Amino acid sequence: MRNILLTIEYDGTSFSGWQRQSNGRSIQGEIEKTLYRMTKEPDVKLFGSGRTDAGVHALAQKANFKTNCNIPISSVPDAMNSIMSDDIFIVEAKEVFLSFDARKHAKSKAYLYRIRNSERNAALDRHRVYCIPQKLDISRMSEAASYFIGEHDFTSFCSAKSLTRTKVRTVFSVDIFQEKDDIKILVVGSGFLYNMVRVIVGTLIDVGHEKIHPSDILSILNKKDRTEAGRTAPSHGLYLQEVQYDMEKFEKSV
Amino acid sequence: MRNILLTIEYDGTSFSGWQRQSNGRSIQGEIEKTLYRMTKEPDVKLFGSGRTDAGVHALAQKANFKTNCNIPISSVPDAMNSIMSDDIFIVEAKEVFLSFDARKHAKSKAYLYRIRNSERNAALDRHRVYCIPQKLDISRMSEAASYFIGEHDFTSFCSAKSLTRTKVRTVFSVDIFQEKDDIKILVVGSGFLYNMVRVIVGTLIDVGHEKIHPSDILSILNKKDRTEAGRTAPSHGLYLQEVQYDMEKFEKSV
Repeated sequence: MRNILLTIEYDGTSFSGWQRQSNGRSIQGEIEKTLYRMTKEPDVKLFGSGRTDAGVHALAQKANFKTNCNIPISSVPDAMNSIMSDDIFIVEAKEVFLSFDARKHAKSKAYLYRIRNSERNAALDRHRVYCIPQKLDISRMSEAASYFIGEHDFTSFCSAKSLTRTKVRTVFSVDIFQEKDDIKILVVGSGFLYNMVRVIVGTLIDVGHEKIHPSDILSILNKKDRTEAGRTAPSHGLYLQEVQYDMEKFEKSV
Repeated sequence: MRNILLTIEYDGTSFSGWQRQSNGRSIQGEIEKTLYRMTKEPDVKLFGSGRTDAGVHALAQKANFKTNCNIPISSVPDAMNSIMSDDIFIVEAKEVFLSFDARKHAKSKAYLYRIRNSERNAALDRHRVYCIPQKLDISRMSEAASYFIGEHDFTSFCSAKSLTRTKVRTVFSVDIFQEKDDIKILVVGSGFLYNMVRVIVGTLIDVGHEKIHPSDILSILNKKDRTEAGRTAPSHGLYLQEVQYDMEKFEKSV
């Protein structure tokens, strides 16, 4: 039995999200169909580092699958890409130890959120960048961003539907970059709750519009109540940019 | 009667091209439907600076229409964008003299062609950038590019289906920019024949792959035979970037 770790890029626009479901086109479902065609193993299963919502993109999602198929590891990306629809791309495949699990062993994740702070969005970016016509105050947003850093209970900053045991997560950094009308928000953390990045970004937008004061972030965290934070930013501006592992522990030398 | 000049951006991916046609979704057709809804004039017609093929994008296509509708000029973009599908965007509207014609009065046009010179394309760019796995020799391509500059008969560098009276056009510049794997080719000229930019780019690619020698460009031009030049580069890497007019001659002060 082999365990293979994939690096996956996708355009989330026409997917119902990562998770396999009976109706709706999912990324997991599409890749599993491809794995079945490649391995001929009807019960092949793909384990992602985490789910992404409908419309969310990935520059480097990670997922692993176990197989008895003896295809050379270097041929896996081409073999999969040649049969898969072109809005999913296998960037890389690595042989990892059988104990490796893409979700459990993720050390950190980085999400990128793209905003165009301008009256009109570019037609070519309508599924890629969130357009906000009203001017954002970036220095206020950067101040607010600093309050997210560290270990906190993020109950106020995730979907009320989130059912995980503990809502405590560690955010390593929240950086805001501006170049003319283009704003990028990069959020790096140990892991994220359901909708957490989108609620953090939505709240930062409310800070940028002076609806929330930067220093209110701490009291919102303390209240542990989703209704205290800002809105959920739309999915199409969000990109899963990186998932990190201690690869030296897991990678098999081929 | 008023004459209104529009600046139009579009994602060409799901269009059959600029030109209105009985079957197939065209950019001209979509905008004319929108103009009809806005003006209530059933015979309103849109005149583009030129056609673009299926899959070709525009950052700033220009087109004009005549109307008796008295909508304020500053409200035209919003009025149109609010009813039009989101892969077309009206960036700007200007009031011009009745004699103005977007095709006839165009002074120059700039086309951008985007290439990713890498084994794999980005999933998010699959309809935006042409992926070429085999390494391109940029210095050879830049040398070849210089031979296109000036007034030439471009019969060898346009579709054999091109039916225009004269194939003589003036190319002002062909510049090639490289940043890591991303290559951009910017072609500026007085006007272009059917498929001309795509044949120029396809030929430059053949030069970059050492199938054609840079200095062969002049003899290919002289032969006036489409079969002498390289292939036609695919449409999805091409962007109509700019159309220039002597606006001081045509713009009405409002």
